[in-house]
Amino acid sequence: MTPDFDVLFSHNRFKGEAFLDELRGNKPLFILTIATTETGKIAGISAAGKYPEFTDYTPPADAELLQLGKCKCINGVPVTPDGIPTPALIAMSALRLADIPVLVCSGGSKVKPQLPFLDLGGNPGRDIRTGSAVDNVKEVFDRAVIAGENLAKVTDYLVIGESIPGGTTTALGVLSALGVKARGKVSSSMPENPHDLKDAAVSAGLAAAGESFGSLRADPVRAVTCVGDPMMPAFAGLVVGAAGQIPVLMAGGTQMTAVLAVVNALNPDVLCNVAIGTTRWVVNDSSSDIRGIVEQIADVPVLAADLDFSSSKFEGLKAYERGIVKEGVGAGGASIAAIGSTEGAINKEMLLTEIERNYALLMGLK
Amino acid sequence: MTPDFDVLFSHNRFKGEAFLDELRGNKPLFILTIATTETGKIAGISAAGKYPEFTDYTPPADAELLQLGKCKCINGVPVTPDGIPTPALIAMSALRLADIPVLVCSGGSKVKPQLPFLDLGGNPGRDIRTGSAVDNVKEVFDRAVIAGENLAKVTDYLVIGESIPGGTTTALGVLSALGVKARGKVSSSMPENPHDLKDAAVSAGLAAAGESFGSLRADPVRAVTCVGDPMMPAFAGLVVGAAGQIPVLMAGGTQMTAVLAVVNALNPDVLCNVAIGTTRWVVNDSSSDIRGIVEQIADVPVLAADLDFSSSKFEGLKAYERGIVKEGVGAGGASIAAIGSTEGAINKEMLLTEIERNYALLMGLK
Repeated sequence: MTPDFDVLFSHNRFKGEAFLDELRGNKPLFILTIATTETGKIAGISAAGKYPEFTDYTPPADAELLQLGKCKCINGVPVTPDGIPTPALIAMSALRLADIPVLVCSGGSKVKPQLPFLDLGGNPGRDIRTGSAVDNVKEVFDRAVIAGENLAKVTDYLVIGESIPGGTTTALGVLSALGVKARGKVSSSMPENPHDLKDAAVSAGLAAAGESFGSLRADPVRAVTCVGDPMMPAFAGLVVGAAGQIPVLMAGGTQMTAVLAVVNALNPDVLCNVAIGTTRWVVNDSSSDIRGIVEQIADVPVLAADLDFSSSKFEGLKAYERGIVKEGVGAGGASIAAIGSTEGAINKEMLLTEIERNYALLMGLK
Repeated sequence: MTPDFDVLFSHNRFKGEAFLDELRGNKPLFILTIATTETGKIAGISAAGKYPEFTDYTPPADAELLQLGKCKCINGVPVTPDGIPTPALIAMSALRLADIPVLVCSGGSKVKPQLPFLDLGGNPGRDIRTGSAVDNVKEVFDRAVIAGENLAKVTDYLVIGESIPGGTTTALGVLSALGVKARGKVSSSMPENPHDLKDAAVSAGLAAAGESFGSLRADPVRAVTCVGDPMMPAFAGLVVGAAGQIPVLMAGGTQMTAVLAVVNALNPDVLCNVAIGTTRWVVNDSSSDIRGIVEQIADVPVLAADLDFSSSKFEGLKAYERGIVKEGVGAGGASIAAIGSTEGAINKEMLLTEIERNYALLMGLK
């Protein structure tokens, strides 16, 4: 029992508590898996950048903020059209508080991050409406498995996050191809979730590929190839490679369910060592339904960091309470890891204080 | 005291024993740092490939053999002109016996290895006779420092090896630029050490750069830029990043002295946590003098795996006793790590048996 940790058990409480117990006092490695796609540039789909072309810079900029404490490929930090800062700010604050190391892994990024990154031989993704979105899915997956197997030998557990604009649309694509009912259930970084736009893109992509709902149930590699994104094979391979040996916390919102579905289709045995770690804003979101997707796939727990910015002194952070951004760059999972690794010594108040401190520093506020 | 381990203390026995003691029972990560150069293609300089153009494939092929147990970018395995197999065979056997994980890191490789590798933003090296051999030295170094700092938080100690054809020539270049007397002292993978060819290339490179012996004593970044290779900033940065926190075994022959000189010039404080780990064939080599170089630079121990192939049933392995190949791909350091991590449970007889087994498998012998 861990009653005093600031972690919510959103789904499968019993397994969730057992999973969190395994993290207690142990040292993780945080891997950020980045990629870019043309899907992220479809008008209205993503809040990851003010302008569509900017989405090519969001993942490398997030990676730089997370690992270096500042961005190098852009000035400032990634923000939504309303000026709300990237959730990398939350993840970075949590990881630094708990002294958790970071490794950046590229599934295929048009703009390279200006830091050391694990190259898996992938390419940036195309628009899923082409029905041919991702190259080398099997090869990238296989390489990620090797990386996961090797990294599992040096760390107690892995926390894996993502940064990829348009990621919930490609998640809906892969879930649909695999026969998981996710229409109206995937999350959004915007307060008004553009479900219709996402559905339209997925329908167009499946049609262009000559596929339909559930037609690729037995072929997850082709599902990602047709209507997925390059983050997925990298992330899924890391999970498959590592979770045979150590616990793996999949850090993200509804995008994680697409990765979960891929892992479940390729290697379900490892899922006994896997949990999803997200934020309170995702599990409490009325415009999406992470539990409703997960329970169609596999019996893994969903944990949520009990982050609460309602008392923040900064409007840019309070906005998270209105459903803006919600999650990303492993913000929820990084917070859970910081809490778990320090046996609860890090709590939500400390996290908010550190996030506010970094927010003020990065935004030039006082 | 560790009297029953198959490790020789070639230089600075007292510190060497203390260092080995720190490895006992602990779990390392092995990093292979690869790069390619045009220097490696100068006729007569390197035994790393039968034909000069083949040297572009040696480092990625070594990386694949080490991590995957077989090469992907070439058929078979890298061999000398006489058909003697790459020392990656030794390193791979040692690491697999001791279940030591591997991470490949590229300082700049013309041919990419077909596996996950850490990209540090470097480019392949030019011929040092141009006097302008390596791009982005400071940037690659800085990125490697970040990788070293982060990886040091998950592993007990690091073992870092290299694969770069022509590496002793670029080592002589950087040592000379830094004012270390290394003429006639660097090793060779060939039985007849072509000291004159190496000297001529280095002299031409220094002259082309407008530099001379010792003129870059205070500027190691420029020394590598002018007459070094892209493995060096990657390797040196990893050492500087990690050795502030954990022991680092620099796994290699006389090339390690050039990296040591760079680290010593940039951040000598970390050297209290550093040792060189090589093979008996290097420390007993009459055509080179690793101790004579090290003692000009810093007071670090030199350990040597007491490998002995004289009783091998294979001529291709017996050849190592005649001074062919000697070291590379961290063969000596990987063997020391396997011995140390298992508290001597792995010894030189077990290593030879495993090396012979893998040799037979890879060469299709019985």
